[in-house]
Amino acid sequence: MKICVIGGDGFCGWPTALHLSQRGHEVVIIDDLSRRKIDVELEVESLTPIKPMSVRLAAWEEVSGRKIRFENVNVAKNYARLLYLLQDFAPDAIVHFAEQRAAPYSMKSSYHKRYTVDNNLNATNNVLAAIVESGIDAHLVHLGTMGVYGYGTAGMKIPEGYLTVKVPIDNGDEVSQEILYPANPGSIYHMTKTQDQLMFAFYNKNDALKVTDLHQGIVWGTQTNETKLDERLINRFDYDGDYGTVLNRFLMQAAIGYPLTVHGTGGQTRAFIHIQDTVRCIELAIENPPQRGERVRILNQMTETHRVRDLAQIVAKITGAAVENVKNPRKEDAENDLHVENRQLLGLGLDPITLEEGLLEEVTEISRKYAERCDRSKIPCVSFWTSDQRPA
Amino acid sequence: MKICVIGGDGFCGWPTALHLSQRGHEVVIIDDLSRRKIDVELEVESLTPIKPMSVRLAAWEEVSGRKIRFENVNVAKNYARLLYLLQDFAPDAIVHFAEQRAAPYSMKSSYHKRYTVDNNLNATNNVLAAIVESGIDAHLVHLGTMGVYGYGTAGMKIPEGYLTVKVPIDNGDEVSQEILYPANPGSIYHMTKTQDQLMFAFYNKNDALKVTDLHQGIVWGTQTNETKLDERLINRFDYDGDYGTVLNRFLMQAAIGYPLTVHGTGGQTRAFIHIQDTVRCIELAIENPPQRGERVRILNQMTETHRVRDLAQIVAKITGAAVENVKNPRKEDAENDLHVENRQLLGLGLDPITLEEGLLEEVTEISRKYAERCDRSKIPCVSFWTSDQRPA
Repeated sequence: MKICVIGGDGFCGWPTALHLSQRGHEVVIIDDLSRRKIDVELEVESLTPIKPMSVRLAAWEEVSGRKIRFENVNVAKNYARLLYLLQDFAPDAIVHFAEQRAAPYSMKSSYHKRYTVDNNLNATNNVLAAIVESGIDAHLVHLGTMGVYGYGTAGMKIPEGYLTVKVPIDNGDEVSQEILYPANPGSIYHMTKTQDQLMFAFYNKNDALKVTDLHQGIVWGTQTNETKLDERLINRFDYDGDYGTVLNRFLMQAAIGYPLTVHGTGGQTRAFIHIQDTVRCIELAIENPPQRGERVRILNQMTETHRVRDLAQIVAKITGAAVENVKNPRKEDAENDLHVENRQLLGLGLDPITLEEGLLEEVTEISRKYAERCDRSKIPCVSFWTSDQRPA
Repeated sequence: MKICVIGGDGFCGWPTALHLSQRGHEVVIIDDLSRRKIDVELEVESLTPIKPMSVRLAAWEEVSGRKIRFENVNVAKNYARLLYLLQDFAPDAIVHFAEQRAAPYSMKSSYHKRYTVDNNLNATNNVLAAIVESGIDAHLVHLGTMGVYGYGTAGMKIPEGYLTVKVPIDNGDEVSQEILYPANPGSIYHMTKTQDQLMFAFYNKNDALKVTDLHQGIVWGTQTNETKLDERLINRFDYDGDYGTVLNRFLMQAAIGYPLTVHGTGGQTRAFIHIQDTVRCIELAIENPPQRGERVRILNQMTETHRVRDLAQIVAKITGAAVENVKNPRKEDAENDLHVENRQLLGLGLDPITLEEGLLEEVTEISRKYAERCDRSKIPCVSFWTSDQRPA
């Protein structure tokens, strides 16, 4: 198949592009390198020594004998170029990662709120409008987030996107209606993903676009089978307070002898998936497109759930690190349960990597190996959800 | 009170600014004149001879003795200026009309889809972010649309924004949950309003912003008590295929001896409100702000519903015009019922003007009076929802 990976330089996008290329697909990466530019802004670097795109692509060709084409395009701003590329390449599938994806970054300031809304919503709308205008029959695979569900409904497994509810009508009866699971985003970033859902639903209804929306949990792990083939192909590992997800921060803190900082009581339960499973899920989604005219297919892309404090204990046990509770910079419930339906991707053949299996490799091959590259001043979260959460 | 009217040069914004000024409020209009620029693009003009902003404001001062300040600012693009104005003026209320508001315009082409998304979503997010950043305690009153509800649920009166549904949980029980009425927008324009709702809900939850969202029906009528005071204050009357709403197109067609063009069977039922009631509703919303910490207040701002074919018959009866059925350029149900709850604004004191009372004045004072200004080539709708709806 011919596949565009928009946002193919990022943490999920890069290993996805390699994985799809390895499987014999013709891959074009479209990316404006914004993730690297945000590193410049935040004065941080990936713990792992990621290489420039041209070096990455040359290494991939050397190692695999396969070429990946790269187009440096901001799809939120340069619609004309995006349209041309889609018309010219006529992809069968488009994987859309081209969104600012850190909740803390999206809450840092008005600038960051505005950048996230402007970039994410225009990127998604431009991709959708360009598919319609170009007339290509491409399947759009979008990376959404479990965060669209908020904290879920107590006592209920979170379904895959849609919820059947009973609506009381005027004559006293009730009618069953299937709705998008009611959105309850916890940050501006998550909000944009709930707004994306409305765009997918509209273009699907109006233009019969084929769309799969993958509601992903927190991705952990760094390497995939392809990124391991050569150190020049290594994937990003973010540990800073904005982009470092909870597990990476714990691993990094352990590696440099820093206590594992748990926000609040650590009672927040989150869904997780290994990066190797992410790329496999995207492949499964591409291989199983919805029919034209079928509603948006929504799959929950996660494999296990953990409470943050339990995660800290697991990392502490492997590494011997101490655990420290700090004030939560986010506005969220202190404790929540989370049960998630994920039957669809399992049914398509996903065989999950568990945290138990994969965590030691992260410690030895990533966080300890590159520990000397760590800037420990960047670990604490310095983004606050409201001004009254900021320290005086 | 000190009130900003963002989008105060438009069809609803201008009479709102005058009405609030007349009632003794200190009014600042913020507008980038985009509505007039779209007239230039579409090569159309308001049927009524609207005056430039400086002439309008001078006339208002002459007639009423009151000053309205005007700031030419695009709030979707010029965040810095918007923030400065809010900090400097410190309004008690902000009325937000600064969105592209025509469904057909939003569907004309990729450019128009993209403009509508970019303008409307950035405008709303900028206003919200600026309220938070400035630290002012302003009540935001936003003009939404009945279109966020789609066609409603059969057999049920459309509630005011929120719906209580029963959700089945895992142990076989059901729990009641209040949700935003599930969105089902019929155009890109309507979609942006459903996305706005998610922004209001988020900023309300995270920052305790006071927000009222007015889900308005189709506004008919041209003049209000204030715009009638001097011809230089006259309000817009749009009759073109993009901006002319159904009633205005019928009035115009009747005035120039053109048959009234009904899309499809004309079985679409729509909600209506007179422009005089619109300005009164906004005043009522401003006078009755939600408490800080209260959820977003959603009011249905409409006073009666009519089927499009019945509307055509009413206009035909007054004017003697013929009725003609034409192919529907929109993608929508041919026939729908519509029952709408509007108790809240009636409870606050709204005393509606009915179509029956007001329609003759529209015929004599507007459509017949200015008929010689009509460009009849602009009446048909030339925007199509999908390419296969376009004539060959």
